[in-house]
Formats: sequence, C-alpha cells, structure tokens
Amino acid sequence: MSTVETTRKAQVGVVGVTGYAGAELARLLLRHPRVAIPTFYLRDGHRSVHCLSELLPEFMGWGEAPCSPFSVDAVVRGGPDAVFLSTPHEASQEVVPELVKAGIRVVDLSGAFRFADPETFAHWYKLPAPEREMLESAVYGLPELYANQLPSARLVANPGCYPTSVILALRPLITAGIVDLRRGVVCDSKSGASGAGKEPKRELHFVEVDQNMRAYGLFTHRHTPEIADHSGLKPEDFIFSTHLLPVARGILSTLYVWLEERRTTEEIESLYRQFYAGRPMVRIRPAGHLPDLHHVVHTNFCDIGFALDPSGERLIVVSCLDNLGKGAAGQAVQNLNGMLGFEEACGLK
Amino acid sequence: MSTVETTRKAQVGVVGVTGYAGAELARLLLRHPRVAIPTFYLRDGHRSVHCLSELLPEFMGWGEAPCSPFSVDAVVRGGPDAVFLSTPHEASQEVVPELVKAGIRVVDLSGAFRFADPETFAHWYKLPAPEREMLESAVYGLPELYANQLPSARLVANPGCYPTSVILALRPLITAGIVDLRRGVVCDSKSGASGAGKEPKRELHFVEVDQNMRAYGLFTHRHTPEIADHSGLKPEDFIFSTHLLPVARGILSTLYVWLEERRTTEEIESLYRQFYAGRPMVRIRPAGHLPDLHHVVHTNFCDIGFALDPSGERLIVVSCLDNLGKGAAGQAVQNLNGMLGFEEACGLK
Amino acid sequence: MSTVETTRKAQVGVVGVTGYAGAELARLLLRHPRVAIPTFYLRDGHRSVHCLSELLPEFMGWGEAPCSPFSVDAVVRGGPDAVFLSTPHEASQEVVPELVKAGIRVVDLSGAFRFADPETFAHWYKLPAPEREMLESAVYGLPELYANQLPSARLVANPGCYPTSVILALRPLITAGIVDLRRGVVCDSKSGASGAGKEPKRELHFVEVDQNMRAYGLFTHRHTPEIADHSGLKPEDFIFSTHLLPVARGILSTLYVWLEERRTTEEIESLYRQFYAGRPMVRIRPAGHLPDLHHVVHTNFCDIGFALDPSGERLIVVSCLDNLGKGAAGQAVQNLNGMLGFEEACGLK
Amino acid sequence: MSTVETTRKAQVGVVGVTGYAGAELARLLLRHPRVAIPTFYLRDGHRSVHCLSELLPEFMGWGEAPCSPFSVDAVVRGGPDAVFLSTPHEASQEVVPELVKAGIRVVDLSGAFRFADPETFAHWYKLPAPEREMLESAVYGLPELYANQLPSARLVANPGCYPTSVILALRPLITAGIVDLRRGVVCDSKSGASGAGKEPKRELHFVEVDQNMRAYGLFTHRHTPEIADHSGLKPEDFIFSTHLLPVARGILSTLYVWLEERRTTEEIESLYRQFYAGRPMVRIRPAGHLPDLHHVVHTNFCDIGFALDPSGERLIVVSCLDNLGKGAAGQAVQNLNGMLGFEEACGLK
Repeated sequence: MSTVETTRKAQVGVVGVTGYAGAELARLLLRHPRVAIPTFYLRDGHRSVHCLSELLPEFMGWGEAPCSPFSVDAVVRGGPDAVFLSTPHEASQEVVPELVKAGIRVVDLSGAFRFADPETFAHWYKLPAPEREMLESAVYGLPELYANQLPSARLVANPGCYPTSVILALRPLITAGIVDLRRGVVCDSKSGASGAGKEPKRELHFVEVDQNMRAYGLFTHRHTPEIADHSGLKPEDFIFSTHLLPVARGILSTLYVWLEERRTTEEIESLYRQFYAGRPMVRIRPAGHLPDLHHVVHTNFCDIGFALDPSGERLIVVSCLDNLGKGAAGQAVQNLNGMLGFEEACGLK
Repeated sequence: MSTVETTRKAQVGVVGVTGYAGAELARLLLRHPRVAIPTFYLRDGHRSVHCLSELLPEFMGWGEAPCSPFSVDAVVRGGPDAVFLSTPHEASQEVVPELVKAGIRVVDLSGAFRFADPETFAHWYKLPAPEREMLESAVYGLPELYANQLPSARLVANPGCYPTSVILALRPLITAGIVDLRRGVVCDSKSGASGAGKEPKRELHFVEVDQNMRAYGLFTHRHTPEIADHSGLKPEDFIFSTHLLPVARGILSTLYVWLEERRTTEEIESLYRQFYAGRPMVRIRPAGHLPDLHHVVHTNFCDIGFALDPSGERLIVVSCLDNLGKGAAGQAVQNLNGMLGFEEACGLK
Repeated sequence: MSTVETTRKAQVGVVGVTGYAGAELARLLLRHPRVAIPTFYLRDGHRSVHCLSELLPEFMGWGEAPCSPFSVDAVVRGGPDAVFLSTPHEASQEVVPELVKAGIRVVDLSGAFRFADPETFAHWYKLPAPEREMLESAVYGLPELYANQLPSARLVANPGCYPTSVILALRPLITAGIVDLRRGVVCDSKSGASGAGKEPKRELHFVEVDQNMRAYGLFTHRHTPEIADHSGLKPEDFIFSTHLLPVARGILSTLYVWLEERRTTEEIESLYRQFYAGRPMVRIRPAGHLPDLHHVVHTNFCDIGFALDPSGERLIVVSCLDNLGKGAAGQAVQNLNGMLGFEEACGLK
Repeated sequence: MSTVETTRKAQVGVVGVTGYAGAELARLLLRHPRVAIPTFYLRDGHRSVHCLSELLPEFMGWGEAPCSPFSVDAVVRGGPDAVFLSTPHEASQEVVPELVKAGIRVVDLSGAFRFADPETFAHWYKLPAPEREMLESAVYGLPELYANQLPSARLVANPGCYPTSVILALRPLITAGIVDLRRGVVCDSKSGASGAGKEPKRELHFVEVDQNMRAYGLFTHRHTPEIADHSGLKPEDFIFSTHLLPVARGILSTLYVWLEERRTTEEIESLYRQFYAGRPMVRIRPAGHLPDLHHVVHTNFCDIGFALDPSGERLIVVSCLDNLGKGAAGQAVQNLNGMLGFEEACGLK
C-alpha cells in the first residue's frame, strides 16, 4: 500500500454525510492540510444535492464541497486514495466488499466489520453475518493499539465510541497484569445524545432527554463484544453499562478495578504514561486531576485520569472523549493518517 | 348550567392523555380537591391500556386512574359534569360537536373553536372551517377576561399558550388607551420545546434544540389571530414572533410599546394591579422586578413585570407562564372551575 | 412522644430557607394537609425579611408565610411540634443540642448527627466531633429502614441524598444474602447541580456545568460512611463514586453486584417487592423497565429497577430519586409524618 | 503602520486569558497560520503560571504556550506586532494608554475605548472617563464598516457582542433609507451565559440559568450607546433589550422594523447581499431561511436572515453570532488581520 507523497494532497471520498458523524467528518476533512477537498457521495433522498451547504447550512461560505449521487462506479471513477463510509451497518455490509474488491481503501464507521468472528456481529446486531474473508482483512482501527497495521490496510473498521473510551482506559492495566480479575471490572459509560444518531425518535425528543438521565441497553449493548475483543478482559470478567446524558456530545466512562496488590499513584500514572508514550491523541492526567467532557469535546483526544483509594487497592479510572471525535470521525481521520503515511495527529489538533 | 354542589366531587373525563398537555391535565385533575378521579378516554393505538401508569410510569403509585377506549357513547354513558379534549385540531373538530349536542360540557384544548369567524380557522390552520353554530356558542377561555361567561358555557375553547402570555400583558394597556398605536407594538415570544408537541421530529431532536435557539413561524404562526381578536390591537398594529428555546417548558414574551404620553412606573404598575384586582392567577411584579421562567413553571400563574425608559415613553413588558400550565392544562382547569362554580384557583396553587 | 391529634394541624418551624433544600421544604410544608402554615426562621443577612415571597418570588400569591429572625428562644416561644433545620453542618452542630435540650423535636438536614460514632463525622467532615450523647439519641431518618424509631425520636438526622439512593437499592440484596461479597460492589452515582448547594462557585457556573459531566470526590465523598453504616456492606466491600450531571435536580445511581449463585429476574423482583411491601415511597419497576430522572423529579419517590445478565450472575440495579425530594426535603417531611403519627406519604404524593 | 511581510509570522501577545473570551482568543491564535505562538501575559493571582495548559487543561498536548507575568515593560521588550487585551474595563483603561504610548499596537476587548465621547463611557459604565486623545485615535473594530481604518490603527476598540449582532443587521436597512423611523425599531437580543463572564455569581449558578430565561438590563444595558453610534439610528428611535439564554454561547437578535413603503423579499435580500458583497464573515440567508445558533457557534460568522410580512411593510430580521467568536475573540482576530495586512478571514474559517 503506498503512502501519499508530500507534494500532493490526498484525494478522499465520503459516503454518507447526513448523520452527525458524517458532518463531523466533513468538518475535519475540509480543514485537513494533507487532504484535498473531498467528494461527498449521497444516497437515497439526497441525490439532487450538489453542494454540502445545501444540506448543512453551517458549511456556507467555507465548506461548499461538491456532492454527487453515490454508486460504486462513481467512487471508483474518482480514483480516491481512500473512502470513508459513514453509513448504516446494512449499507456498509453491502457496499464495503464491492469497494474493497474494486481496489478502493476503505475506512468504515459502521459496526459491520469490527469483529474477527462473523457470528459475533450476527448475534449482537441481529443482521446477517459478514463475509469471513472481509473480516480477516479488516484492521480494528484503534491506532493506539494497531497503528502498525494501518499502512497496509485495505479495510479499517473504525471502533465504536464507547469501546474506544473503555479499551484505552483498561488495556494498559490489563496488559500490566495488575488487576485482580477474580473481583471483576465494572465499566460505567455515559454518552451524549448525538451518539444515538440523528433519526427522530420519541426517546430522543428534546423534552425526553433534557433534565433527564437514563441507563439503557444493559447486558445487550452492541459495543460489549468490542470491549471483550480488545481490552484484554474475558466477557465474564466485566460488566459494561451505558447511559444517555443530556448533552449533545461527549462520553465519560468510569472504570472500577480492584488491584492484585497495593500500588501507588506514581506507579499507576507511570504505567499509563509508558503505555501511551509517543501517542499524541491520548492525554494522561496527573494524579489528582480528572478529565471532564469540556476538555475533550470538539477534539480528537481521549483524556484519562484516575483516583486510587488510600489502601492502594481500589482504582477508579475516568476516560473522556468526544463520541463524534475520537469516538467516530476524528478517529477515522487518525486512521486515514496511518493508512496514507501522514503524521498521526495531522489535521486533528 | 348548574354548578356542582359542595357535597360531592365533580365527575370529569379526559379525552387524549398521550401528549404533554394531556399528561399535565391528568396531574392537575388527580390532585384537584373538588374533582373525583377522572376517566381517561384513549384513542387509536392506546385502546388496550387500562391504567394511566401503563402509559406514564411517573404516575405509578399515586395516579393509577382508569383508562378506557374513547367513543362519544362511552363518554355520554359516564355522565360527566364536563369533559376535556386534549386532542389534535382535526379530532376536536369532529368530536366536539357530537359531545356538545349530546349535552356534554366541553373544554377543548385544540385551536378548532377559538375564533368567532370560521374562516379565520380555515385560513390559518389549513383545515375545513368549523360549524358557525358551534363557534357562536363557544367561550374563549381566558378567565381573566371572560370569567362571567363560564358558568353557562357549553363549550370552552382553551386559548393558545402564546396568546395567553401576550394578551394578558397587552390588554390592560390597550384598554387604558395609553399606547401610541401609530408606532406599532412588537410581541417577541419564546417558548420551551414541549409547546411543539410530543411527536418526534427532526427539528425537536435533543441535539437540534439543545444549545440552540431559533425563530420560526414568522408572520405565519397560527396564534396570531387570537392576539388580534382579544388583545384590543388590530392585526396591522402589531408584529408577533415566536422562538424555540432550549428548555422543556415555559414561555417568556417581551412586549414593546411606545406610550401616547409620559408615564411613571407607579402609573403603569397601578394600571396593571387594578386591571387584575381579584384575579388570583395573574401576578404583577413591583416596578424594577422582572419575572422569569423559574417563577412560573409547574404553576398556573402568569407573571407580568415591566421596565419604563427614563423618558417615560417607551415601555417593555415581560410576561411569563408555563405553556403546559396557564398556557394549556392549568388554564383548562381554571375554566372548569369557572364552569362548575368552584373557586377560580381551586386545585391550582 | 405524642402524636398530633387529628383535629388540629401541626405547628412546625423551619430554620434556614435560603438554600435549595430549604425552599423545597417550604413548598412541601405549605401544601401539607396536616401542617399549619410554618414559621420560617432566618439567620444572618436575611433577618429583615418578613415574608417568604420577599426571598423567593415564586411563592408570591400562595406562600406568603411569615419569616422572623432565628434564635433558640424564638423557636421555643413558638412551641412547635417539630422544627426542621436546613442549615450548614456547623450551624446544626451548634443549634441542634440547644433545641433538643429545650424540648424541641428536630429534623436536621445537615450531616452533623448522621453517624453513631462522633469520630466518623470528625474524620470525613473535618469538623469537631459532635456530642456522643446527641448522636446516641439521634435516629437515622430513612423511614424504609427505621420507621419504628420515628414516633419517639427527639432528633432525626435526615440522610444524605446519595446514600438514600444507594442504601435503598442495595439493602434488600445484602439482607437477603445473595451478593458475592468477595467480588465487591460498585456504586456509581450521578447527581444534578442543586445537590452541590446554592453558593456561587466557579465550578457551578452555568458554562462549566452545561454540556459537561465530571466525576468528583472519588474515595473522599462524605456520604461514603453513611453507605457503610446502613447498606449492610463493609467499607472495604464497595467502591462509591459521585458525578456532577448537567441537570438541576435528580440522582441516578447505578449499582453493580455479582451474585452468589444464579438468580432469575422473578426472584430479584420478588425480593425487592417483599422488602418494600407497604412502603409507599419506594416504587419497584417490573423486570425490563428502568426508572429515569423524569419519573422522580418533583416527587418523594425512590424508583428502583434492574437488569440481570443472561447467566443470572451479574446484576445491575438502577435507583433514581430527586435529591431535593426523597434526597432531602421530601424525606424530611416523611420523617415528620413518622414522628407525628401521620400517614407516611401524607402531603408527599 | 507596516504590514507583516509574508515570509514571517506575526508576533503577538495576549494580556488576560483567564476569562472565556481570552481562552477563545488563545484557541484562535494558536491555530492562526500567520501568527507565531503568542506570549500570554498574566496578571494578579496567576503570575506563577508558566504554561497555558496549567490554567486551561483543554490546551494540554497542543497549546502549551508560554505564560509570563504582565507588565508594560515585559510587553514592550517582547516587541510584538500587536497585543490583545482581554481584561476588565478598568484594567484596559489603565494599561492601554501606556502600551499605545510605548508604540505597541493594541486590540482592546473591553468597553473602555469604544465611544467617541468620553462622557458616554463614564455615564453608562459608571467609571472615570477615558482620555479624549486615546478615544480620538481609536478605531471601532467592526471590519464590515471600518476595515479601511484598520491598517493604520494603533488602537482598535473591539465591539460588544450584542452591538455587533444588532448593527450588522440594521445598518444596511438604515443606510438604504427604507425604514419608517416614525414607528420605531425594536432590537430583542438573547445571549448565552458565557457573555456574562466567568466570575461566579448567584444568578449564573447552573441551577438558576438552566431551564430558565430572563430579561435583564432593560434601558440600562451598556451596549446601548454602541448601537446608537453605529447603526445609523438615533437613541430615541429604537428599543434594545437583552435576555439571558440557557446556552453557553451564542447571540440571537430579532430586529423589528416597519418599512417606509412596500418591499419584496428579493429587494431585501439583494440589499443585504450588496451591502456585504466581498465581506467573508457575514452570511446572508436566502429568503425563507433563518439562521440559528448552531449555524454560528464556534465560528466567526454573523448570519443574517429575514421574513417579510405579506403586506411587504413589516420586516423581521434575525441575526446570529457566537458571542465569543464574532462577538469577541474572533472579531479581535479579524481586526488583527486588518491591521497587519492579512486576509480578512485568515485563521477564522
């Protein structure tokens, strides 16, 4: 897979820009110094749109990018260095194999190609299993863990927003072997409403979400198997929960672990710093300082902080990110950077 | 029309409880000291519900009121002292005449019977004109202006939320003849999202409303002719605008008038106090104090305050109410009180 | 301790009405059918106020209750059946013993008298230890556990808001002995901003809280020892965390437990229903239904729901209440009801 | 006044970065392609801070700019091309003359130098009048009106947030002479809470602002005389009001004008388009489309839309901007661009 030489800008396409993640992706790509103005491919119902600001008035005057009807042929004719899919699972399942077989490199934001085992997807998403061959060629696009697989990747499955926040917080601890797994790990995640998508639904009406908070998807959330696959934890070792917050964007995950033996805050902080040394998009807070949503919204950072109890045996880790940034569109751009040989944080600071 | 003797509680029915105003009406009636537990009549899609808390979990444990399928016959058989309709305009248009002709007294929360002239409704609502005969018998249910018509009313058309806030603020000034009508009156109204109804719509998605504000319905809002009919202003004398606020409930209207001649704050305050003397649900703020939404949400009050410019010639009036309280369900109960001979504020404080 | 005969209304006083809990208490008491209009005793800075609506404009027109300067003598002269203290910990520490010794029955909303061991308070609150004698006579005012101690109580220490939500959710499970305590229990609590008090602080500025969420007080929150004292858990068995939500009121606690052996949802639901049989202020949700903040704000209910994982070994319990209702003022009134022999839910539905 | 040659980046300093506008300014300048990393000068209480992210954790990892204690000498020694002051009025009043006299070019975000007449400031701000000489040399930094004065400006007084939204909406109409001034113009403005500053105050507590809206400063708001000076209206011709919205950022102004004679929507739209031809930061909406806060927050755009009543004689104009962007820091950068000869929108899209 060749990288993009520094003398030209990369050509990219975006399929699906009508959702919240798609619009964020447009925003990031239009400002990316190594990417030319992308082409936006629209599907049913928006095929007559010619310019991004017709769909999204906030782009008026600076993001008047061209839009055209989506077809695999149209994308192939464009000859892009890579294409993003910000489409429903079903649409990605249908289109990704065609694009990949036509030689197009793809970053897919849906859940369709995130699991090594086709049955995992079928079970949790209640949809047909994807082709095993496609899954085998797919890279799980969490650059902090798998950056070395990106340069040669033909298909990158962009991770879910919740798993990104949970895996980045837990993986260093699990890898270091300091967690008492006999006690169990708890992952309590809270997300803003843009994570639930743009489709109007009764439970996403302003009056229902505002001044409210609720838990949902307990023991059934589709993001659970991603955590099992990449955190280092076995499914029976952890409980994962999700909550809807009355904010537009942002995820805060609170992780609870019992340690095998007493640790100091210096040890914990140092463990995180070493694990993420050289990784620009994870920021470790000094002991005693916790991240919050304001620190990360409209950025591609995942911020991690922690508190250790006085006995040194119980640890709470707090992990924050923007579900549309590091949890979706920002991470997709980070993956593009890895695929095309750009600096990891290029266009993301 | 007979009042309800003090030795028994009134029997009432409610048609339509699935919207925000209907639920608020249920809340008020279940706590009303002179009203027996109401029967809730449900229409399509909810006919199998037997108990209010099946629909609205917040009523569990205290508002387990009976529900049954709606039909005119079922209501008539119940023999209620009055029935509330919290139904769409079209449904009210169909059902109200049948109920009234069957001898049932009705408080209708829709817009269908608010206008003396059938064409006004047809023009602004793009629906067939209601029967002139029904309109002639209907009372516009703003008790501060028309309380004396309530005891004999067979049909009360409960006012719109915006007009209630605007008319109550302007009428005393217009009646007193102190406004310079050559200059024009401006009514800038802002409402919370429950005023837009419970139907899920793209523009009512949490992410669209939160952290946002927008004007809408300029020069086309259906509440305009109510203001023209009851404020004392001619249609060409005022501009009325509406805005969507990122709050669940509450309306704040800011009214701008130029005065015919210099006035003092004492004169203005006194004018309002005299106009609303003995009316328990309008509260006049002392000069220098303005009402805000927190003062009125979850109440049936309309709070009015004002500021006069140093020249004494320009006046800003601020009027606040809860769009589900004094702007809908609370006012409907206030109308019921007037119809049945209860104290005006009974069950509303 | 005598109850209040049914032919007269109870006389009560309230010390401190300037905070959020105090205002909520005023709202509840003014509507309580067995309580006469209370006297509000104001401390420094508000001594010239004569009427509640001067302080709180939302009480205009219906809650014009008398206010007078606070002194122990003034309260004693009033001869109330009971007095509420909605005052800072330090103030309660000073005033409560004087009132109790003067024969006044007290419900104290501060943290000063919540712990059997004086050192617990001193350690967690960094304040002088209260008199052991006072603590011994104090009842921890969680009526679902200690209702039988209320009729004779001279001093009721009203519980903290977080502990109420956590203890009510966990106690039935711990009492039943079905929790695997070797694994540890996690209590992840989230609260609205009114729980942080009315004092203006940088971190409570609208701009800091809105669109944000943050964890705080990890391993240091003062409510921790209340959970240790009344949930049935030992301090080393659980982790308790607190988060600030961008809502005005409401607490949602998510509780994580591993069970000793497999259970069915029917068993769990039945266990909760039996534990709270006859207790009007705790509502158990049917399996598969979770409570949210909208179900409980502006009420005195604590709503409890749960989800059991398919293996039947991991349980998530969700507990919701209004931090100013069941978490403070409402619970204080529930305690008053118990002290004076009123029905437990009197004035609270 | 010399422009900055294209081969080097401009050196700028920022005095005051602890408020909301200061932090936004830092964000913009750190990303500005023609500006070198600025030096941040801190005043009392923050003099020991060496790096921006110590103060503002959201800058960690990308905005680790140097901070040093403020003094006029320190700024002069730095030899910057320009300095921003994001300081209180009093501080600007003291420091600006010293800096200007030392040859430093200044963009001042306070209100101190916005008025030609020293008495205007003294009257509305209740502070000593500034030196007349300073005022005479100051440019009112609304580039859409006064861009040609920027290249030679030594002192730019950055406009208030409200006036920017009102003046940009009204000036084209007034200049065109189509407004019936005998009837009076109404300017109803609504702002998010960041406009009220970062100081903790009772009325800015989350619980007070959330779910609320209130009018304030009626006939006394300090931004009134800016509108009188630059909109083309005489003080007695308009009423200006301000309201606090439950959002963090954004201003929406609704402007009401009666026209001298009937106009068409095409005429109005064309009038605006001609007035702002070539001005990149004002976006005119096509007739029938209104801007909202989401279109402008986190941008430097002022979006203007309108609705004309069917008679063609009454016009409502809606103007939106980000009070921290075009209403403060963004406009300050736009002014810098004008002073140093950069493209008007450089670093602002």
